[in-house]
Amino acid sequence: MAGKNYYDVTDWNTGNPYEDIGEVINSIIADIKCRQSEADVEEGGKPGAVIYIPSGDYHLRTQVVIDISYLKIMGSGHGFVSSSIRYNLPESEWADLHEVWPGGSRILVEISAKDTGEEAAGAAFYVERNGNPRISSVEFENFCIDGLHFTDDGSGVENPENTYTNGKTGIYVASAQDSFRLTGMGIVYLEHGVTIYHADALSVHDNFIAECGNCLELRGWGQASKITDNLMGAGYKGYSIYAQNFGGLLIGSNNIFPRGKSSIHFDNVARSSITGNRFHSFYPGMLVFEGNCSENLVSSNHFLRDNEPWAPMLEYNNGLNDLYGLLCISGNYNSIIANHISESIHGQSIHPAGEKPVIIHLTSGMGNYISSNHIVATTEASSEQTEASDSCFSAQVDALTMTDQRVPLEVIAVLVEKESIQNTVLDTGMDSQVIMDKSANAFRATPGIGE
Amino acid sequence: MAGKNYYDVTDWNTGNPYEDIGEVINSIIADIKCRQSEADVEEGGKPGAVIYIPSGDYHLRTQVVIDISYLKIMGSGHGFVSSSIRYNLPESEWADLHEVWPGGSRILVEISAKDTGEEAAGAAFYVERNGNPRISSVEFENFCIDGLHFTDDGSGVENPENTYTNGKTGIYVASAQDSFRLTGMGIVYLEHGVTIYHADALSVHDNFIAECGNCLELRGWGQASKITDNLMGAGYKGYSIYAQNFGGLLIGSNNIFPRGKSSIHFDNVARSSITGNRFHSFYPGMLVFEGNCSENLVSSNHFLRDNEPWAPMLEYNNGLNDLYGLLCISGNYNSIIANHISESIHGQSIHPAGEKPVIIHLTSGMGNYISSNHIVATTEASSEQTEASDSCFSAQVDALTMTDQRVPLEVIAVLVEKESIQNTVLDTGMDSQVIMDKSANAFRATPGIGE
Amino acid sequence: MAGKNYYDVTDWNTGNPYEDIGEVINSIIADIKCRQSEADVEEGGKPGAVIYIPSGDYHLRTQVVIDISYLKIMGSGHGFVSSSIRYNLPESEWADLHEVWPGGSRILVEISAKDTGEEAAGAAFYVERNGNPRISSVEFENFCIDGLHFTDDGSGVENPENTYTNGKTGIYVASAQDSFRLTGMGIVYLEHGVTIYHADALSVHDNFIAECGNCLELRGWGQASKITDNLMGAGYKGYSIYAQNFGGLLIGSNNIFPRGKSSIHFDNVARSSITGNRFHSFYPGMLVFEGNCSENLVSSNHFLRDNEPWAPMLEYNNGLNDLYGLLCISGNYNSIIANHISESIHGQSIHPAGEKPVIIHLTSGMGNYISSNHIVATTEASSEQTEASDSCFSAQVDALTMTDQRVPLEVIAVLVEKESIQNTVLDTGMDSQVIMDKSANAFRATPGIGE
Repeated sequence: MAGKNYYDVTDWNTGNPYEDIGEVINSIIADIKCRQSEADVEEGGKPGAVIYIPSGDYHLRTQVVIDISYLKIMGSGHGFVSSSIRYNLPESEWADLHEVWPGGSRILVEISAKDTGEEAAGAAFYVERNGNPRISSVEFENFCIDGLHFTDDGSGVENPENTYTNGKTGIYVASAQDSFRLTGMGIVYLEHGVTIYHADALSVHDNFIAECGNCLELRGWGQASKITDNLMGAGYKGYSIYAQNFGGLLIGSNNIFPRGKSSIHFDNVARSSITGNRFHSFYPGMLVFEGNCSENLVSSNHFLRDNEPWAPMLEYNNGLNDLYGLLCISGNYNSIIANHISESIHGQSIHPAGEKPVIIHLTSGMGNYISSNHIVATTEASSEQTEASDSCFSAQVDALTMTDQRVPLEVIAVLVEKESIQNTVLDTGMDSQVIMDKSANAFRATPGIGE
Repeated sequence: MAGKNYYDVTDWNTGNPYEDIGEVINSIIADIKCRQSEADVEEGGKPGAVIYIPSGDYHLRTQVVIDISYLKIMGSGHGFVSSSIRYNLPESEWADLHEVWPGGSRILVEISAKDTGEEAAGAAFYVERNGNPRISSVEFENFCIDGLHFTDDGSGVENPENTYTNGKTGIYVASAQDSFRLTGMGIVYLEHGVTIYHADALSVHDNFIAECGNCLELRGWGQASKITDNLMGAGYKGYSIYAQNFGGLLIGSNNIFPRGKSSIHFDNVARSSITGNRFHSFYPGMLVFEGNCSENLVSSNHFLRDNEPWAPMLEYNNGLNDLYGLLCISGNYNSIIANHISESIHGQSIHPAGEKPVIIHLTSGMGNYISSNHIVATTEASSEQTEASDSCFSAQVDALTMTDQRVPLEVIAVLVEKESIQNTVLDTGMDSQVIMDKSANAFRATPGIGE
Repeated sequence: MAGKNYYDVTDWNTGNPYEDIGEVINSIIADIKCRQSEADVEEGGKPGAVIYIPSGDYHLRTQVVIDISYLKIMGSGHGFVSSSIRYNLPESEWADLHEVWPGGSRILVEISAKDTGEEAAGAAFYVERNGNPRISSVEFENFCIDGLHFTDDGSGVENPENTYTNGKTGIYVASAQDSFRLTGMGIVYLEHGVTIYHADALSVHDNFIAECGNCLELRGWGQASKITDNLMGAGYKGYSIYAQNFGGLLIGSNNIFPRGKSSIHFDNVARSSITGNRFHSFYPGMLVFEGNCSENLVSSNHFLRDNEPWAPMLEYNNGLNDLYGLLCISGNYNSIIANHISESIHGQSIHPAGEKPVIIHLTSGMGNYISSNHIVATTEASSEQTEASDSCFSAQVDALTMTDQRVPLEVIAVLVEKESIQNTVLDTGMDSQVIMDKSANAFRATPGIGE
């Protein structure tokens, strides 16, 4: 049935998948390598295999180590539930919960880097192989990786489940790889959801990666990849999407919700695209271009920043103040075109008090092109009562949709520092809202009423 | 094999899936609930299950009721075929058809709200659960829900199969839910394809939802969801996509074809995105923002309105005239940037006769930003013969691609009513094509030839 | 188990799938047709079936012929590896390779059109059916089609594996069809990856189609389809995406990498969208609109052209010189809005020498609207050493991300020929960079520094 290259973790001869699915999968991988030992037999020989994880709760006490190409690991459900909401309920309410834990084809990660100090040691799935070719076409599809708990991070917060720290990683790819796919996954309550070094032609598509310290980190360097159509949102001190030394990355059609220290953080990324996304954040610094980030396109995105509406998270933020910029850009020849940017915050939340928040901040570089962006800044009318709520969902929807009693808030639409020169700013703010050396940059103000 | 959490409807001990798959699935759900009775056993306990529907024709005479999280229902084929074309063939041609009915993993919906008057009673799949947590991570994947027939709607139309009315719904989610997924589904000939109340982190991705009275309705309120990469098109009196009191909705990369009373209808929707879609309609009112729709982004979309080319549908329309606006916007601080809008209609089809059709119509609100849109309006040259065709496919392709014998049609590119103030309109029409109080709004005309 | 409509190629009673999977699948299709002989039994009758291909190497020596609707062919892995890199390694290194061949659920195509001269004869999967309805809802999912080798094309190149010619096609759809889906496929080393005539409501989504002579060709005519979220890149003499006489095509969120004679080539395509893509090429002519291409939208795309960095491909190009245009547009009323275009090339590579490369070239037609595009043209500083590399991956990443030692290159941002009239060009170049009859077109220059 389905030949020998189809494995079901519940039907394997070694280990107990419910007690340690890591042992089972490693044993299956050993079997594949044993059976597929010849690389070139009639122009084939190592086609890989699929490992199926049916719906169920599977503890993982041994790290899965992947060093073969064409391995597909697939389940039957991404199984997300909000663990953050649960951990902020009074424990007395737990007995009434329909379900307590995430589900689907669910891996319970019981290992942690905390024991060794090495981040990779805390990864449920660890991929590494040297030599040629690069490991290729490993696919992860439609299962859940759950880190279970966050733990005390030394900050002394009352509820350690809110620390977004536990030394656990869902998937860690340590060596250069080609044409990997992550699709339909659910990844929750891990300090690092997915960490990938040296990606080429990677596809991270249609996943649910939330309530992780960091969601997706592309480290080292890489090229020609796509992060599309995901629902994501990291904790208050981590990255939702981070990329380093990357070229040709396409980030499109994602819905990135709070919190996340940032929505997207680029470090020396070039010739990449951020288009058609919806971003929502509770802090400044939603989009950060650090170092030499050049020739990137930021287009047709919706940025919204408002205030934290949920009581248990009120004490957290990312430590940046409102002068940092909602978008903070370092680098050359980037394009920021046709975006909508809403900043809708309480007057008393602005830091430093009395200052105008900065929306687009160019800190260094040259030749950036900023055109046709609509910046909407509002605050509550003086008579309005705004307060955080104990109910995460209704609080968030109310905060999102109650737009009718707002009044304009004065902001700096674009701030260009002296270190950033020869930029072009068009139709993105009134003359008074754009602060820069207008003799050293090109500028056309958005026309005013009746002008 | 695949453990106990994998169910195949053709291999279950209760009911006959071909006669009533509803009874079978409900029995399976009861079995899951019976077996997964403890919510917290070693940090797991209720992982849910997958129910597999192989390719086949499955009558549904009992409504499926879902009240457990992490249930995945999946098939092996979305099975769409155009029932509308079939029902408008002479019956004498039926005998020669290769296939008569839709296929794949196909549910034949034999229940209807008509018996009770309650819309929910006509749903093939009904989801409801109160208490905490919200029901989460139910997934519908790659099967077909077919309503079979439309029925007399009292309008006296000759062919009741063209009424788009039958009291049937494919999927109806009545209570607040989290992280649901619909992927790869085919949904056809239902009065309501998918109706979801109170959605959070919903993903409706890569489905085929067509020839339904209404395709996708997000009712009540909701947030942080995505409707992406779908092929859709409702009947002439229903919604292709409707959303109500929603925040943070991302509608991207969809191809929404006719007919549909509208392509997208928002009612009090805020901070949402409509980007990178292709919209095609035969009537005015393609995009409707009703009530207080604020801070939404409409960017990089292609809008095309032309005339109905298919003979059996010539008698229908959505009742709106050409002064309504192809895009009709009520609300504040919306952004309409970088869209292409083509209106290509017969001169004699314009109502009221002699009037210039309105393309973008702002009816109330303030602070909307309309920039860098290209509006192309054409009509047939006087010598051109245009007529509807009996062949749906060739007629449509000809209508779409025969663009070379057109002459310009005079339209109102932007009409801003007195009730809508302080808007900004840039590079979206010549001075003569933009009708508004230019002292109460900001305006820059698209430069003219040689200006 | 899974009823009779679920077939596994490794568990069928006719043929040996490892020796000739074509014979096996044709035998299965014959069985489906035999069993599903009645088109209308209780409003069902021909639901189709799913054919599963587990991970493995399957030679195909008989063409698969599909003439039934609702057939799904699915595997467990797209199995891409770079064959191009392998074939350009010294053979002495082959013995050290972890894997030599692509994998996953892999079809090894052993037939070729070379024997007969008819292109269709070289297709692994051939779909054709006349009569009504059009063949519908055939789905191809998550398997690999590998053409194995390229062969001598008469050009006398040293390594025939670099010819991108072998007379083989992956999937060839010869007749009008409706609602087909290709998802998660891997297609490699075929002269034609996917060729589809007369498409309607086609979805080509989330595939990996690379190292093919041509990746995806939509021929004849067609409408209302989507090509989204794919990773693609053809050889130096073929199309990555080609469409002909098409209306309502949506090409979005794709990452199209080199080489490809072009990234997208439209021939008489109307009312279609190219939005949110990332394009990378080594030659001029990345986007070609040929004939009457009208009312199309090109928005929010990232275009990058630089020089070939990989030694084995240095001798190839598409034969176009730098006056052709990076985007070459023939047709009416197209929109090119909010794109980023980077041209970053060696000074000595420019042909004709001493000329300024053309970025956007309008060759005929009227009424095109070009607005808010950011064109960045750079070349190496005189002191910089640039050379091609033997390592494909590191060479490419370095070339992509080393942007900091570049100096501006003079280009013609927009060139409008006399044959193209009444166009509008806004904010897409300085006055000196836009060459056209400014009395016969509308123009607004991007403001200069300090203007």
